[in-house]
Amino acid sequence: MKPHHDGSPLYVSDPAPGLGDTVTVFLRAPASVRTVHLRAVSDGEPEFAAAVLDRTTGGENWWRAPVPVHNPVTRYRWLLDGARWLNALGTAEHDVPDAYDFRLVAYDPPPAWAADAVVYQIFPDRFARSFDRPLPEWAVPCDWDTPVCGRGPQTPRQVYGGDLDGIRARLDHLQRLGVDTVYLTPVFPARSNHRYDATAFDTVDPLLGGEAALHRLADTLHARGMRLLGDLTTNHCGVAHPWFQAALAGGPERELFYVDADGGYESWRGVPSLPKFNWGSAELRRRFTDIAVRWLDVLDGWRIDVANMTGRLGAEDRTHEVAALLRAAVVRARPDAVVLAEHFHDFTGDLDSDGWHGSMNYAGFTRPLWSWLRGPDLDLADFLGAPGGVPSRGAAAAVATMRAVNGLVSWRAYTHSWNLLGSHDTARIATVTGDPARHEVAVGLLMTLPGVPMIFAGDEFGLTGETGEASRTPMPWDRPVLPFYRDLIALRRAHPALRSGGLRWVRAGDDGLAFLRETADEALLVLARRAPGPPSALVPADAALVYGSDLFEVWTLP
Amino acid sequence: MKPHHDGSPLYVSDPAPGLGDTVTVFLRAPASVRTVHLRAVSDGEPEFAAAVLDRTTGGENWWRAPVPVHNPVTRYRWLLDGARWLNALGTAEHDVPDAYDFRLVAYDPPPAWAADAVVYQIFPDRFARSFDRPLPEWAVPCDWDTPVCGRGPQTPRQVYGGDLDGIRARLDHLQRLGVDTVYLTPVFPARSNHRYDATAFDTVDPLLGGEAALHRLADTLHARGMRLLGDLTTNHCGVAHPWFQAALAGGPERELFYVDADGGYESWRGVPSLPKFNWGSAELRRRFTDIAVRWLDVLDGWRIDVANMTGRLGAEDRTHEVAALLRAAVVRARPDAVVLAEHFHDFTGDLDSDGWHGSMNYAGFTRPLWSWLRGPDLDLADFLGAPGGVPSRGAAAAVATMRAVNGLVSWRAYTHSWNLLGSHDTARIATVTGDPARHEVAVGLLMTLPGVPMIFAGDEFGLTGETGEASRTPMPWDRPVLPFYRDLIALRRAHPALRSGGLRWVRAGDDGLAFLRETADEALLVLARRAPGPPSALVPADAALVYGSDLFEVWTLP
Repeated sequence: MKPHHDGSPLYVSDPAPGLGDTVTVFLRAPASVRTVHLRAVSDGEPEFAAAVLDRTTGGENWWRAPVPVHNPVTRYRWLLDGARWLNALGTAEHDVPDAYDFRLVAYDPPPAWAADAVVYQIFPDRFARSFDRPLPEWAVPCDWDTPVCGRGPQTPRQVYGGDLDGIRARLDHLQRLGVDTVYLTPVFPARSNHRYDATAFDTVDPLLGGEAALHRLADTLHARGMRLLGDLTTNHCGVAHPWFQAALAGGPERELFYVDADGGYESWRGVPSLPKFNWGSAELRRRFTDIAVRWLDVLDGWRIDVANMTGRLGAEDRTHEVAALLRAAVVRARPDAVVLAEHFHDFTGDLDSDGWHGSMNYAGFTRPLWSWLRGPDLDLADFLGAPGGVPSRGAAAAVATMRAVNGLVSWRAYTHSWNLLGSHDTARIATVTGDPARHEVAVGLLMTLPGVPMIFAGDEFGLTGETGEASRTPMPWDRPVLPFYRDLIALRRAHPALRSGGLRWVRAGDDGLAFLRETADEALLVLARRAPGPPSALVPADAALVYGSDLFEVWTLP
Repeated sequence: MKPHHDGSPLYVSDPAPGLGDTVTVFLRAPASVRTVHLRAVSDGEPEFAAAVLDRTTGGENWWRAPVPVHNPVTRYRWLLDGARWLNALGTAEHDVPDAYDFRLVAYDPPPAWAADAVVYQIFPDRFARSFDRPLPEWAVPCDWDTPVCGRGPQTPRQVYGGDLDGIRARLDHLQRLGVDTVYLTPVFPARSNHRYDATAFDTVDPLLGGEAALHRLADTLHARGMRLLGDLTTNHCGVAHPWFQAALAGGPERELFYVDADGGYESWRGVPSLPKFNWGSAELRRRFTDIAVRWLDVLDGWRIDVANMTGRLGAEDRTHEVAALLRAAVVRARPDAVVLAEHFHDFTGDLDSDGWHGSMNYAGFTRPLWSWLRGPDLDLADFLGAPGGVPSRGAAAAVATMRAVNGLVSWRAYTHSWNLLGSHDTARIATVTGDPARHEVAVGLLMTLPGVPMIFAGDEFGLTGETGEASRTPMPWDRPVLPFYRDLIALRRAHPALRSGGLRWVRAGDDGLAFLRETADEALLVLARRAPGPPSALVPADAALVYGSDLFEVWTLP
């Protein structure tokens, strides 16, 4: 085994240090490593401390060193035998910059429940309908079995009539599955089925049952010990929002947007129906702070839509300010609330500050997993936005991507970010894998790797879809659930090491990978393959199988 | 040859674009690459453009794509055949984060002369003496041949009496060598031979000849077409500085420092004689802006001492603000001035903004070069601050370090940073290499790799020294200069490709490395070894040798 360290409690004495504290960190290394130093950066200057041998277990030495938490984010790495470095990317035989240093973060940690959650994403219009309502003029009414139009003028206008009381009636399904946190895509009034074009932020869409229905849903969830997260569109609103209409009319709301003298304006990716907010406006900050706080009597936090774009335009980059502002307001009102960023791409520069608690981890989870587990016949037009479809890559490449992305943030930010197999913005995992056995491996990795698992409603039924829009399929309530969802969620719940253990990569080849999740109390060996093969030689004789299928196995080590 | 792109004019249509411009960028790739896309990040969101085939030369395809310069720093990378990435680290077979993306910078560029300079660092007390002056009480007077005390109470107090008129009298030496820019370590009054403990910033130390001597030196340099840079200690001053004495006495200067109620205070690495400035003070900003500008009638810019620490303390990080403030003030007064950071470590996070034009590049040049070219018997206590001495590494590791560090900044920041073989803060290169032939290779790489070469005065005489302090040897004016200094500086001057050409790594093994420097008009192949070997098979039959020694060769390709 190679020398190893990560940010889990096995290796770090205090995961939530305050500024001025000293944290003890540990390194595991084979006996061939003779001297160990810790390099920590303090006020821009590295300081070295000689590590001392703490103990020896199973043929490995545990080295111990202090890290003074002198800055809000303190970076450190290990120097082995004066020549080799160990950082979050692994060992390097050459000198390295600080980018992949391990990090201790002195900002307040996310609430304790957040890292243990299993999140279930619901697109309300497509989940469950409690009764028929009259629809607005823009809507194209659909029966529950009408095919979803993936691309065309009808796409945002097809309304299936799912609502909040419909969700409430189906909570047994969620609890049987084992999820405990519901994340709802937007519920504010809008002029589309996705509601990312809000026309208000202070009421719930009557099509969904209105604010009373949201309260009923929240109360029922909370009574069951579950949580509810909302979706806040901080980058833009709908063109029909009264703020924007007032801005166009020359009112004081003009400062909330980027409206020029000719009535032209900035919008989300140039789409005129989604005018972009100007976070340089103190009034916008006031209004959004109020909105973010106003719903915390029902919601346990927010997923922030296109957080990557929010506050960014040309020479302006206010994203960190906005994140800090919203998080401060939210946690002041509800210390147990989370504020999580949507970032479809490289989120690493936006975390580890006093802003977003974590991010949706497409870059460091979904992408590598798709490229490894994609089916041989998959033919998507793009790869989560990149042209050329989904490339087929081996497990080593998938692990390299995971390390390259997740190594750029603290262990805290990594473990509080959301892993996902897909969402309302992507193809469905059943389509990507094209095969239930590979689908099971995907869910297996979702439940055993660090990071909060998020399941897009319907994946547990094996729903398919080639694009985000086409994947917004109404829930097929008469179908059976794929049993491995329930089993693998239960596995995660049963084993603390899957939620808070360290991550030690053991092997990654082409068709298979293996890693350990370890706490002081248990060690699990996870083996994943994308094709059948002989039993793995990695499993010691005294290990016990706790989960086993054709392609995915989890063993406890004694 | 692998696919290649860098930030040089061969591949980028405009090295100094403005915000809103579109830059055309080019990729060279073998014919086996069939489709190419460019991925550029705009307001946090990647956008892809299909590259088009521009031309084919020498069996390689040149692909062309536009990059809209929408943000002050616009990141981009290439996608090859929908599966492989090319960024500043090279090609990757897996997905990568944006950290190593190429960068276009829309801030104003450094002055045109800066990238073409060859800098010569002078530690004034040890360079040349024009006449004997009475010394202050703290000084230990030394004759020119007194051994330098590398460590002890005398170390900062030994005064050899070098002065500014002494430098002026030796400018023929500099011009014969071929350098054109003189960088002086501090010349302000102080209570040490190094003068990093300033007692004033508005006068020149009388021991050096005072302000009149600085004017004489600057006038003479400028008359010869040379430039003069000063050294500004923005992180701290000497304990005897009147500002600090007034602060200790409870005066309004208190806000310039971190003085607590008991008279305790923050200082440089805890050394009480060097109290640290508080850049939260508007008054400090005003005073330092005045200082930075006040000397620009004689100086052509500044090297900023411990820029890595300046403005950083615990939860405060004002380094970027300070850098932007000082640069703005300096270039407003003198648009042709440079502001360059000292950063002994990983400087990459501090560049590519509107602050420092570049950095001293210990991390991405000195360290990899030392570890490759160190002599077999070298026995230093540390490796530029890291414990364990200088590790011996192969050329591949040296190149990996160079790419890992320099790939994190724009081509502009890379080529305007200073490469150096050593300084008044390190061992001497003659000691590190222990061998004139390897010393020549070191100088060869200094003159042929991207980045501004900086020579520490005395290295050209082969002076030795095991630590920074011990390396501050008086100049041995009666010795001959190592001829390869002059020859290799002349080579750099003769070949624009060595100053502004692209950098394409060709090979790096253990004992040897090879790279190309190319402009539209010339292509140079550089071969460096650390041990003798047979002629390289990389040199084409029609190449012409323009520099050749046992271990270092430069060839022009037709």
